Amino acid sequence: MGAIITLTSDFGLTEAYVAVMKGVILGINPGVNLVDINHTIEAQDITAAAFILSTVYRYFVKDTIHLVVVDPGVGTERRAIALKTPEVYFVAPDNGVLTYILQDYECKKGRLCAGLEAVHLTNKKYWLSPVSNTFHGRDIFAPVAAHLSLGVPFSEFGDSIDIISVLPAQKPYIGAGIIAGHIIFIDHFGNLITNIEKDMIAGISTDITVTIGKREIKGLSRNYSEKPGLIALIGSTGRLEIAQNKGNAALYLNAHIGDKVSCIITSICET
Amino acid sequence: MGAIITLTSDFGLTEAYVAVMKGVILGINPGVNLVDINHTIEAQDITAAAFILSTVYRYFVKDTIHLVVVDPGVGTERRAIALKTPEVYFVAPDNGVLTYILQDYECKKGRLCAGLEAVHLTNKKYWLSPVSNTFHGRDIFAPVAAHLSLGVPFSEFGDSIDIISVLPAQKPYIGAGIIAGHIIFIDHFGNLITNIEKDMIAGISTDITVTIGKREIKGLSRNYSEKPGLIALIGSTGRLEIAQNKGNAALYLNAHIGDKVSCIITSICET
Amino acid sequence: MGAIITLTSDFGLTEAYVAVMKGVILGINPGVNLVDINHTIEAQDITAAAFILSTVYRYFVKDTIHLVVVDPGVGTERRAIALKTPEVYFVAPDNGVLTYILQDYECKKGRLCAGLEAVHLTNKKYWLSPVSNTFHGRDIFAPVAAHLSLGVPFSEFGDSIDIISVLPAQKPYIGAGIIAGHIIFIDHFGNLITNIEKDMIAGISTDITVTIGKREIKGLSRNYSEKPGLIALIGSTGRLEIAQNKGNAALYLNAHIGDKVSCIITSICET
Repeated sequence: MGAIITLTSDFGLTEAYVAVMKGVILGINPGVNLVDINHTIEAQDITAAAFILSTVYRYFVKDTIHLVVVDPGVGTERRAIALKTPEVYFVAPDNGVLTYILQDYECKKGRLCAGLEAVHLTNKKYWLSPVSNTFHGRDIFAPVAAHLSLGVPFSEFGDSIDIISVLPAQKPYIGAGIIAGHIIFIDHFGNLITNIEKDMIAGISTDITVTIGKREIKGLSRNYSEKPGLIALIGSTGRLEIAQNKGNAALYLNAHIGDKVSCIITSICET
Repeated sequence: MGAIITLTSDFGLTEAYVAVMKGVILGINPGVNLVDINHTIEAQDITAAAFILSTVYRYFVKDTIHLVVVDPGVGTERRAIALKTPEVYFVAPDNGVLTYILQDYECKKGRLCAGLEAVHLTNKKYWLSPVSNTFHGRDIFAPVAAHLSLGVPFSEFGDSIDIISVLPAQKPYIGAGIIAGHIIFIDHFGNLITNIEKDMIAGISTDITVTIGKREIKGLSRNYSEKPGLIALIGSTGRLEIAQNKGNAALYLNAHIGDKVSCIITSICET
Repeated sequence: MGAIITLTSDFGLTEAYVAVMKGVILGINPGVNLVDINHTIEAQDITAAAFILSTVYRYFVKDTIHLVVVDPGVGTERRAIALKTPEVYFVAPDNGVLTYILQDYECKKGRLCAGLEAVHLTNKKYWLSPVSNTFHGRDIFAPVAAHLSLGVPFSEFGDSIDIISVLPAQKPYIGAGIIAGHIIFIDHFGNLITNIEKDMIAGISTDITVTIGKREIKGLSRNYSEKPGLIALIGSTGRLEIAQNKGNAALYLNAHIGDKVSCIITSICET
């Protein structure tokens, strides 16, 4: 019934980098419960890592430690950090991978807001020695996460900081009768996940037309098989998705991350 | 030394859907032992999921809970169910994914036979709330499996049912001197696994000719490298397989699921 | 806080072979901690398996059991063995997959040197019964690893042996002012990992020119983003690597395993 450490990386499945981190962690805390989030993130794709992390972290119990190693700047001046929310912890490079966590707490421009704390990982007592310039996942992030899971106080790991790196804003434009967003992620079923959130269209779901390119989808479906062809629905991540019943919307529409998706709120337009 | 929950899905490795289910389960039962069976099943391929599950479930100890989420009908009228055998449990959509389990117990046409019990999962007390229309793996199946692993009585989860969905029969034709079957699965080595079972050809293994297309393979080998070229053998799943020594039989023969494979029992023919 | 068993295989992710082994292990020792090293090794690629194992085993705590099932000779005369170092255990087919472990202990030609012990796995008491001819991972290696994790004495598993199979030597040529090696592994970032080890070029790192084909790379970088273009550095495995900053060196150079890589030690040449 030990602490939980989750692991997210772009290390792929063809070497042993993930297992090396697990070996290091279990050497420090043999009782920890390790859960893989995702290791097939495209190499160095901080944006995808940030999104995937945002879809999963809230499903883990209090005090879970989320270890994230998508780290193209390893060995440079980029900081190694840890973030503490009222619920869980994150241990990660300071490169924007925690953008959506701060967005969820409504912090602006990377400045930590109420309830959040962060430290710059500088206390070498909790690192492997020597530290390489190429694999801080093994040498810094994994041992810090393991010591944290043993109950070492958060402030022990380094100096307190009050601003961290975030990616450019991902919020849609919300105007009179229209919400103009874009695709932020495409899942392996080919479903197109947008930055338009459930709350933005709450209460008006039956009178919406969703547009992508020259396509129009009238109304929101409740599930992936309610009607044939293209459908729009609020997916399990709480975001507007475009899917194709028994098909692959991304291939069918030749859609890509960044493509525009709009919600036209018909009932308001017609009033 | 906690209970074991295994996980089988078509969620792939590129998002965090599997980890979300694990987070939900560990939130309910932090002491459970999670084991991945397979998450790379082709999207919505119930037939492959049913086969893969059939090859593995008997290797887990008594009271293991097998959670299966290959669920193209999520959000529709298809039932969510749990099945109890004298040995283990299954929690799954009622879409045929448990076909081979019932076949192993010699139940006919989906009707539960001696030793088996099933419930329609209707007791919302053991679900997440609210339940989405798109991800019952997270909202229904995972929490039910977790509560079951804590010892909640099986009958608590919903009404008892006595018939469940099964796929069309997968049994070979057995005639005088011939067994006519087909390929039901192709593994990643390219080995062709058929629906012809060890018991059907027990005792006559040295006088068999296996045919696929215009090819004839004389006799059964004991392992994958006993002789060069194409070989037929009883594989580790207890079924007749066609393999190519140091090669890939599926590519070599351009073979597909459903292709006919026959065993001609020479000794009988010649008598 | 149980024992750790790691798993390395070429079973891929598309069937349930790995899960079957885990089911068998947990049936014997429910308290064991299972850690996947890698299951996407190319089918029957003993060389890659040996390398991957060499990069990870030293990061696991004392008494960890490393189970390796890359086993093209399953069912033939090849022996099943276990190896004991002062630190950890290995359970594997005797086909060269433990080559780098013996190299790390400076044993010559597969002959066990000081501190190492090995047994030929012959005691059927610790196997599943019956044993198939096609899946010793399930029937022999997994149950042996599980019983070893329960504290069964090493000598119980079979007869002591003093020589095991190793692959042809992988050491570079070291001459006056030059070290001539080759690529032994390409990771999924496209980084080219060579058999030239850190110790071979210790203390002379600033005056080195690395050559591959007609390319020359002057000096060693400290990390993957220190300068644009092709870089040479000592990677996290302690070996000379060639990488491309924000790119894929293997694709860019059309490089393959076995390609020659040389270090020309400029300072010596010019003296």
